[in-house]
Amino acid sequence: MVESTSAATSRRAGEILTSARKLCDPVLREAVSSLPEPLRLMGGYHFGWWDAEGAATPRQAGKALRPALTVCSAVACGATARAALAAAAAVELVHNFTLLHDDVMDGDQVRRGRPAVWTVWGIPDALLLGDALHALAIRVLVTGLPGRTATAAIARLESAVIEMCHGQHQDCRFRTVGPVDVEEYARMAMGKTGALMGCACALGAVCARADPPTVSAMDTFGRELGMAFQFVDDLIGIWGDPEITGKPASDLARQAMSLPVVSALGSGTAAAAELATMYGRDPAIDSMDTARAAALVESAGGRERTRRLAERRVRAAIAALTDPASAADLMALAGLVSDRNH
Amino acid sequence: MVESTSAATSRRAGEILTSARKLCDPVLREAVSSLPEPLRLMGGYHFGWWDAEGAATPRQAGKALRPALTVCSAVACGATARAALAAAAAVELVHNFTLLHDDVMDGDQVRRGRPAVWTVWGIPDALLLGDALHALAIRVLVTGLPGRTATAAIARLESAVIEMCHGQHQDCRFRTVGPVDVEEYARMAMGKTGALMGCACALGAVCARADPPTVSAMDTFGRELGMAFQFVDDLIGIWGDPEITGKPASDLARQAMSLPVVSALGSGTAAAAELATMYGRDPAIDSMDTARAAALVESAGGRERTRRLAERRVRAAIAALTDPASAADLMALAGLVSDRNH
Repeated sequence: MVESTSAATSRRAGEILTSARKLCDPVLREAVSSLPEPLRLMGGYHFGWWDAEGAATPRQAGKALRPALTVCSAVACGATARAALAAAAAVELVHNFTLLHDDVMDGDQVRRGRPAVWTVWGIPDALLLGDALHALAIRVLVTGLPGRTATAAIARLESAVIEMCHGQHQDCRFRTVGPVDVEEYARMAMGKTGALMGCACALGAVCARADPPTVSAMDTFGRELGMAFQFVDDLIGIWGDPEITGKPASDLARQAMSLPVVSALGSGTAAAAELATMYGRDPAIDSMDTARAAALVESAGGRERTRRLAERRVRAAIAALTDPASAADLMALAGLVSDRNH
Repeated sequence: MVESTSAATSRRAGEILTSARKLCDPVLREAVSSLPEPLRLMGGYHFGWWDAEGAATPRQAGKALRPALTVCSAVACGATARAALAAAAAVELVHNFTLLHDDVMDGDQVRRGRPAVWTVWGIPDALLLGDALHALAIRVLVTGLPGRTATAAIARLESAVIEMCHGQHQDCRFRTVGPVDVEEYARMAMGKTGALMGCACALGAVCARADPPTVSAMDTFGRELGMAFQFVDDLIGIWGDPEITGKPASDLARQAMSLPVVSALGSGTAAAAELATMYGRDPAIDSMDTARAAALVESAGGRERTRRLAERRVRAAIAALTDPASAADLMALAGLVSDRNH
């Protein structure tokens, strides 16, 4: 039986993720183990290593896409995977610090199919664990990378954190100020998702001591891929299978301003007008007919346009690669981002 | 008229704080100005530079004790004040990041006599501003200090952040698990307050390229002083004048487990038993008779014991100084901490 190109790419991407997670996991576990109790316990629970009492679980923590991007970027720039492990772990720690805080801000009760940390230990502890993981990320870079590489990586990572804070602020704001246009949404997504994926790739290049134009190209690759990731996430948030995604409810149920919705609302169609009425209702009073809303988003062209914008971002990501021949693994990850269903 | 030693010391300490604030302010303002809006606006409001609309205010931000400790420690170790400014600003940024998060966790609505950021912009923005100030602190160290000094300072500062997270966790826990003993309270205070003050002093020594024993001695000086600071803070929280402290209500009104209370509750006196009954009531139902509670804490010896423990910590701080002759300004700050009334 001949495997299709897409299936082969997807299989390869899966192997890359598994391999990066395997390499990165000991660094992450060592870092989290250095936390005083109960921060260590809560941290390991959040990463899916054990349950709330500390008993080992077979569950895996997330996709570990960002560490894989860091490792593959380093390899694409001629370094070993090992040279980038501290950076990969630091990026994953920052990602998880923001997840912990975002879950509190957004009131999201489920993370990776399990109760979010704040629902188990309370809001203060979830905030403190997030702050501690942020600190840990930087400490991993200081201890795990040689001097100048460390300072360059730290400066980039903290700048990404500030961009993420700004992106999350905008995202929260969209919930109260009503519809935004596609461009404003894209700027938010660049901060919220693009900045850290760009940083993940740039840090791989920094660990490989690549020249500034290469670091910058890797940053662009990651940012564009991050945007595509967010747009596909928005599609999954409406049309994904809850059994596969681990997310219990449609984004539409909480009247989220995701790209398909923003795009649909701006389409000037009759479907847009009906959707706007549904979004205008008080969600605390009326439960949204999410199936009807999804049909309206689709007939207003929101699904198709989001799909097209995601594909455009993947193409822009690949176009940014200065040496595609050495970046086969990054290409496979890019393919995964656009084709994923969770 | 001959000025008393205590008045002269207090005047000198005031001058040191003013001078450190003046030196540090431009670095802080430049850092906060680099934030994207509205994080910049919110940051400047929190520091007291302008009101919520951005109009300049004559108000000053806090005491700036920590930056003064960093600068004076550097000078005591033979460096210029200027060499330690980035570190001083970074410590102050971290201190303010934790204030922003603590105010959310503790539900404290007033900060330095003004509405806390979360009451003006909401909880998500206050959390994001805290996260951004944390990132900014590290970025200031990377850009403002030479390579090896930067990485040493960053490692120390992030370790202090983790200790602070743990201390704040314990402090939150004390509110639900009931009385603790004096030793457990002291461990909490070491994390919550001692760690960052120790770090403030250690970073001054690091900026002066002092040898490890000197850095460690400075850390001990700052930690002991930080404990004294916390204990005096606890005294002010009960017996301070709200007009001077800018804090609206007694710690007793919210049934805080501060050192005078912990100490009183553990005294085995009749006053302790009555106080325990008052602390056992549901604060949501019964408003505490704070004057009566304060009298009970005092008659159970809680006030006197806290005062003695604070003085002991100040003495331990001074004893840690390896070269007291060069540390006159640190001694003046230590005097200020034990004699302050706000």
